[in-house]
Amino acid sequence: MHAALPQQAEQEAGSSDAGSSKTSRDLRRVDIHPDHWYPLAWSREVKRGKTHGVFFAGDPIVLVRTESGRVFALEDRCAHRQVPLHAGVVDGESIRCCYHGWTYDCTGRCTDVPYLGRERLPNGVRSYPCREEAGLIFVFTGDPLLADTATFPELGSATDQAYKTRRFGRAVKCHYTFMHENLMDMNHQFLHRRQMGSMRARSLGRRRGEDWVEVDYTFAREAGKQPLGEALVFGHKRDTKPDESLKDIMTIRTVYPYQTLKIRTKDETMVMDLWIAYVPLDREQRTNRTFGLLSIRRPKIPGLLDAAWPLLIWFTERIFKEDRWIVEREQEAHDRQGADHNHEVFPVILELRALLAERGAPARDAAAHGVEPRRVHLIQPITDLPAS
Amino acid sequence: MHAALPQQAEQEAGSSDAGSSKTSRDLRRVDIHPDHWYPLAWSREVKRGKTHGVFFAGDPIVLVRTESGRVFALEDRCAHRQVPLHAGVVDGESIRCCYHGWTYDCTGRCTDVPYLGRERLPNGVRSYPCREEAGLIFVFTGDPLLADTATFPELGSATDQAYKTRRFGRAVKCHYTFMHENLMDMNHQFLHRRQMGSMRARSLGRRRGEDWVEVDYTFAREAGKQPLGEALVFGHKRDTKPDESLKDIMTIRTVYPYQTLKIRTKDETMVMDLWIAYVPLDREQRTNRTFGLLSIRRPKIPGLLDAAWPLLIWFTERIFKEDRWIVEREQEAHDRQGADHNHEVFPVILELRALLAERGAPARDAAAHGVEPRRVHLIQPITDLPAS
Amino acid sequence: MHAALPQQAEQEAGSSDAGSSKTSRDLRRVDIHPDHWYPLAWSREVKRGKTHGVFFAGDPIVLVRTESGRVFALEDRCAHRQVPLHAGVVDGESIRCCYHGWTYDCTGRCTDVPYLGRERLPNGVRSYPCREEAGLIFVFTGDPLLADTATFPELGSATDQAYKTRRFGRAVKCHYTFMHENLMDMNHQFLHRRQMGSMRARSLGRRRGEDWVEVDYTFAREAGKQPLGEALVFGHKRDTKPDESLKDIMTIRTVYPYQTLKIRTKDETMVMDLWIAYVPLDREQRTNRTFGLLSIRRPKIPGLLDAAWPLLIWFTERIFKEDRWIVEREQEAHDRQGADHNHEVFPVILELRALLAERGAPARDAAAHGVEPRRVHLIQPITDLPAS
Repeated sequence: MHAALPQQAEQEAGSSDAGSSKTSRDLRRVDIHPDHWYPLAWSREVKRGKTHGVFFAGDPIVLVRTESGRVFALEDRCAHRQVPLHAGVVDGESIRCCYHGWTYDCTGRCTDVPYLGRERLPNGVRSYPCREEAGLIFVFTGDPLLADTATFPELGSATDQAYKTRRFGRAVKCHYTFMHENLMDMNHQFLHRRQMGSMRARSLGRRRGEDWVEVDYTFAREAGKQPLGEALVFGHKRDTKPDESLKDIMTIRTVYPYQTLKIRTKDETMVMDLWIAYVPLDREQRTNRTFGLLSIRRPKIPGLLDAAWPLLIWFTERIFKEDRWIVEREQEAHDRQGADHNHEVFPVILELRALLAERGAPARDAAAHGVEPRRVHLIQPITDLPAS
Repeated sequence: MHAALPQQAEQEAGSSDAGSSKTSRDLRRVDIHPDHWYPLAWSREVKRGKTHGVFFAGDPIVLVRTESGRVFALEDRCAHRQVPLHAGVVDGESIRCCYHGWTYDCTGRCTDVPYLGRERLPNGVRSYPCREEAGLIFVFTGDPLLADTATFPELGSATDQAYKTRRFGRAVKCHYTFMHENLMDMNHQFLHRRQMGSMRARSLGRRRGEDWVEVDYTFAREAGKQPLGEALVFGHKRDTKPDESLKDIMTIRTVYPYQTLKIRTKDETMVMDLWIAYVPLDREQRTNRTFGLLSIRRPKIPGLLDAAWPLLIWFTERIFKEDRWIVEREQEAHDRQGADHNHEVFPVILELRALLAERGAPARDAAAHGVEPRRVHLIQPITDLPAS
Repeated sequence: MHAALPQQAEQEAGSSDAGSSKTSRDLRRVDIHPDHWYPLAWSREVKRGKTHGVFFAGDPIVLVRTESGRVFALEDRCAHRQVPLHAGVVDGESIRCCYHGWTYDCTGRCTDVPYLGRERLPNGVRSYPCREEAGLIFVFTGDPLLADTATFPELGSATDQAYKTRRFGRAVKCHYTFMHENLMDMNHQFLHRRQMGSMRARSLGRRRGEDWVEVDYTFAREAGKQPLGEALVFGHKRDTKPDESLKDIMTIRTVYPYQTLKIRTKDETMVMDLWIAYVPLDREQRTNRTFGLLSIRRPKIPGLLDAAWPLLIWFTERIFKEDRWIVEREQEAHDRQGADHNHEVFPVILELRALLAERGAPARDAAAHGVEPRRVHLIQPITDLPAS
């Protein structure tokens, strides 16, 4: 199952540096492709009868949970004065702008302007397909006609009772591609030497599909003991023989635009399953919000995992903090250098970079940067009410 | 007196959307016209023998109150090293730069450079016509030759003993035009629903002159009781019949570049008189400082208004805070969208926008944005003093 | 020795305004010339076995003190992912990047990539010539081939036991040229009137060489007593006759790119010796870090200077704070005006400006502003390890 690439593919991969130059685009300027389902908030952030304003790549989006509990997503701007709808008031199954009380339903249609006749209502605002799964609110951010046929991500372990799941993440000030490269390149264990001790990753080979790339690793401890936190996540190794630790396989996969990391034991039991997505916040996509579902298989002893949970949270937060720090330094270097000077030597990452470049959004017109195309609302002005 | 526009004018107004497209300029990029008297500080901010630095549309201006108590206004930059004169020292009727002690009189002429002979004094700095009225320091910011003939605003109620006047205002991060639209469109009562309860404004028609536009409103309470704070400002209504409340008329007028809001009872008594001006601070005019004079007619019972004054302050601050928040969101949307996407449907506001566009400053040369034309000082360098 | 310029030179200097227009470059956009030894840190900031990240004109540089105590300087970016090497780990006489463990020696050569064979090591990073003198770490920031022949600054008094030396300085938000002009123009005593009382500087004439300009001053007290702090720095004057105070000579010299200020008594004893350098931090060179060595000759009574030292620190900090404030206002004016509107009338400063313009770096290509030329690393990607 975890077969390495045959020799020929290996050689081709060895020349994938040329492949990346074919694209000739700076990877850090490749926008994420909008035609996917992106998590934009945790379910708990959108309370009943309340709104929640978020951003996707610079576009403000309001998530509204109506009084019946349903969630819908609209452009977070009133068609009238462009102020954020998330400052408005939920009114039954509608949202009413806080300024002049313009009202919109879940399709974005304007259904009421208090001082206007109903026969001359203006156009409304853009609506977005919206789904709530596994404690996340997903929005289809691209062409809405593609929403039904687009692949919805598999979040199986997060709803499987055999696993306990941690939901985590926060805003990170870097391009989403740095996140993918960081997770997939396990040679960066040196960064986590304080948490993990001295570990050496060994790549077992990679595979590539149309919209995905994955790599298998085993790990060998070079010095010191296994830290307690790590034992919780990766499983405890009583056996200290180096060969034993090679029997667990870590598979990291980018299936565009998501990423997963799974650890399986030699008997093919999946002991850890991480699903993660990186959602660009600003138009230039130099920040992202990370949404992670970290599922750990419950051991046979009941309550053991729950007891150890605070330690696991502490451990994963420490790791995540180190990763966040380093990817923000990578972004900082890119900002200062004005171009991607990364000099990658690891074929897995070269393959990943090619995938991210190919699947990303087409290049934007440079002239359009920072300015949205003007939207057209076909509405007529009203006349005054007659004098009393 | 409060007659609505005749039918014909109404129809023309109905097509004023086309009128606004005639101008074809983004209203939020129209600079305020400098050839007017603008309040730049409260009198109390400029203490005797002290200086006070302010900005008008990016131009630094120093207000100096001399030892005799007179106020004058100069460009807030020493001709020598361009450092702010407001950091200097008032010396009798002059201001002395803090750095090398260059001295300027009220006309901006340089009268002393301590290490230079008097016969070779350099040119000075720009001076501005300056007037102090009703607790405000006004500066004529445009062509000084026009200062004498320019209309000085009427501030009558602020100096009338029949009224008690509150002076208020602060910096607001938006273009001054958002302020005018906010005050004139009383359909935004929904924004103040927490302070005002459910009120509905009814427009009685508008009038337009060469440099002004005004509109009359009546108000009807839709639900709930009149809040106490509102009763203080708008007058208490014992009569609960809906028709009664229609008898007070609120008139809002933009007489370029100022704005007033007056409430008159059915017997034509003016019970409230607000005068307000919005002064752009930065060159791009995306911030303004608001100067408001809110005059309330004293009721027959002596001391009643004074006793209620703290409540009135609290109430007006709440309203002003909500308005400030929303206009800053409008500016934020403009910054993000890069253009004015407002879709106005209310003819009064369309008329106001046309007025503001017509009376505003001519478009600046794009190339000059952010860079001032180089000023020329015709002075000669001096030679060293001879060696001792 | 302190002879003034002969009459002819004086006249030429009088026309040096024309000279400055010859250059036609805005002095505040003239980059400091990199082909010099610049102090980038105090020795105590770079601890044994530790790194210290600094900037020179936007270029990140890491200073590394190895386990043997030697200091070397490299480009502060890993060749691989561009993250700062100063976050790495000192390993013997090398520095190891914190991310994937790439290792560099003192020449910048990459000597180890843990997951790569040694035969295919990538290129390394730029190294800088580095010297440690008088408690400062100097780096040659320009063409390394010129380092050996470049003049190293004289720091004699700082290591002379006859003097006690204060090391001081901090980041100042202005172009380095404002610093030179501030120190050399002693007519700005008015700025320090609170610390120094009313003093008048008298220029005794100036001298100019190929890479230097200097001026002599005497001082006369116009009113009040000599403050105690000043007495410590400039020497106490018991003699109150005005002519007496003229006997001390202050010489300020810019010997590109450094500056010195020396006070000699009538018997030619140097009682104070200040050496100072201004190091641009950002690429646009609108900030600098100041490194100053202030040496005061020890008086005959042992311990007197040590006892007075806290007062001297307090006094010099006050003066430095005022100077920092005013030069930051000058930079602020330049930022706002977009050009250098300074109107200098003092020939010494006109001469200094000409020197700074002539000795500064050649104009950068405008297109290159903010973007570095792409660096080329000639390394090959590796293939995966074979599957186990």
